Amino acid sequence: MKDGHDPICSFEFGASKELIVRFKAGTDLVQSLAELARSKGVKAGSFTAIGALKGGKLGYYDQRSHEYREIEIDSPMEIASCMGNISLKGGEPFVHAHVVLSDERGNTKAGHLLEGVVFAAEVHLSQLEGPKLERKYDKATELMLWVTK
Amino acid sequence: MKDGHDPICSFEFGASKELIVRFKAGTDLVQSLAELARSKGVKAGSFTAIGALKGGKLGYYDQRSHEYREIEIDSPMEIASCMGNISLKGGEPFVHAHVVLSDERGNTKAGHLLEGVVFAAEVHLSQLEGPKLERKYDKATELMLWVTK
Amino acid sequence: MKDGHDPICSFEFGASKELIVRFKAGTDLVQSLAELARSKGVKAGSFTAIGALKGGKLGYYDQRSHEYREIEIDSPMEIASCMGNISLKGGEPFVHAHVVLSDERGNTKAGHLLEGVVFAAEVHLSQLEGPKLERKYDKATELMLWVTK
Repeated sequence: MKDGHDPICSFEFGASKELIVRFKAGTDLVQSLAELARSKGVKAGSFTAIGALKGGKLGYYDQRSHEYREIEIDSPMEIASCMGNISLKGGEPFVHAHVVLSDERGNTKAGHLLEGVVFAAEVHLSQLEGPKLERKYDKATELMLWVTK
Repeated sequence: MKDGHDPICSFEFGASKELIVRFKAGTDLVQSLAELARSKGVKAGSFTAIGALKGGKLGYYDQRSHEYREIEIDSPMEIASCMGNISLKGGEPFVHAHVVLSDERGNTKAGHLLEGVVFAAEVHLSQLEGPKLERKYDKATELMLWVTK
Repeated sequence: MKDGHDPICSFEFGASKELIVRFKAGTDLVQSLAELARSKGVKAGSFTAIGALKGGKLGYYDQRSHEYREIEIDSPMEIASCMGNISLKGGEPFVHAHVVLSDERGNTKAGHLLEGVVFAAEVHLSQLEGPKLERKYDKATELMLWVTK
C-alpha cells in the first residue's frame, strides 16, 4: 500500500488481553493509562473509560493555525465518555484520548484529554497484538499520525 | 498487590463472546442490560450503545457531599454515546453506564445513566472471562468500586 | 425466539480481527467506514473513533413524525466521541454511527452522523464473525432495525 495515495491507512490485529482497571483518586487519567500500557507491555490498544474527574485540561486542535487551544476544567465533572488508543511514539506507549465531561446540570465540555485528575475511573483496555503501530510526523496536519511504510 | 498503596487496581480477562443486541421500545436501558447479563451469564463485561431514548434520568455524583444529583430528561433524545461495564454487586450482575444524549438541535445532556426509556437501542456487549470482578464499598468516595484482595 | 414478544433481540459473535485504521483528510467518515467494511469483508462489526472533522451533518430522529431533522456543522470540530456498528442492509455493509463533536471552547453538538468531512480520524473496528446481522423495516419506529429470523 502506498501511503500517500490511499485514503485509508489500516493495520490488522488480534486481541490478546482485555484489561479492566480502576484508577484511584488523585492520579492523572492520561499518565495512568500510559503507565498501565508500559507495565503491561501494551504497544497497541484501544480503550474506553467512565467515572469522574476533579478537574483537568482539554485541547482543541486549531485546523488552520495547527496549534492546540487549551480549555481549563476547574470543577468536578463526570466522565460521560472517554475513548482512545495506545500506540508507539518515539518507541514508548503513547495515549491518545478524547473525553466528554458533564456537570451537575448535565451540561458538557468535550475535547482532546490533556490532563484529568481522577476522582474515580473505570477503564476497559483491549491489548492488541500485531504489526508495529507507530506515530510519525504528518506534514499536512502537523500531527503525529500512523503511517504504513 | 496491596490495594491501599497501588494507584491502579487491574484485572486481566479474555473475551469469550461478543453480543450484538437490540432493545425494543419501552424497555429500560439499564434494566435491559442487567437482564441481558443475567440471561447470558455475563459476570464481567464492557459495552457501548447507540440509539434513542423517549426520556430518562441522569446522575451527577457530588464529590463533596457524596450524593447523586438527578437530572430529569423529559423529552426524546438521541443516545449519542453510551458506554460502561458489567461487574458483580452483591453477587448479581450490576450495570454501570454513562451516556451523552442529544436533542433536535444537537445540544447535549450527559451523565451517569440512572433510567432510560428506550425508543431504539443497539448494544455491543463484550463478555469477559477471568477473575471475579466485584464491587465493594470504598470509604474514600462512598461508592461501590472494584478492589483486589 | 419469537421476535414480536421478546424485549431483546440478541446475536452472538466471536471477534475475528481488530482493525486500527486512520482515515485521511478530506474523506467522508461514514463512507470511509463503509468502504473499509467492504474491502475487509466485514459483515458485522462494532467501532469507535476519535479525531477531528472539518464539518459535517448530524441527524436527530423525530420520534413522532418519524423523520430525520438535519443539523449542519459548518466549522471544524473535534470528534470527542464516535461509536457505532456495521451490519447488512440490502446485502451490503451499512454503517450506523453516532458522534459527539466539540468546538474551541469545548462546547458540543451531537447526534446521528450523516456526513463528516475528516481532518484526522483514528478508528478501531472489531470485525465480528457469527450469524447474519441484517436490517429490516420496523413498522413501529419506521427505522431499519435488526430482527431475528
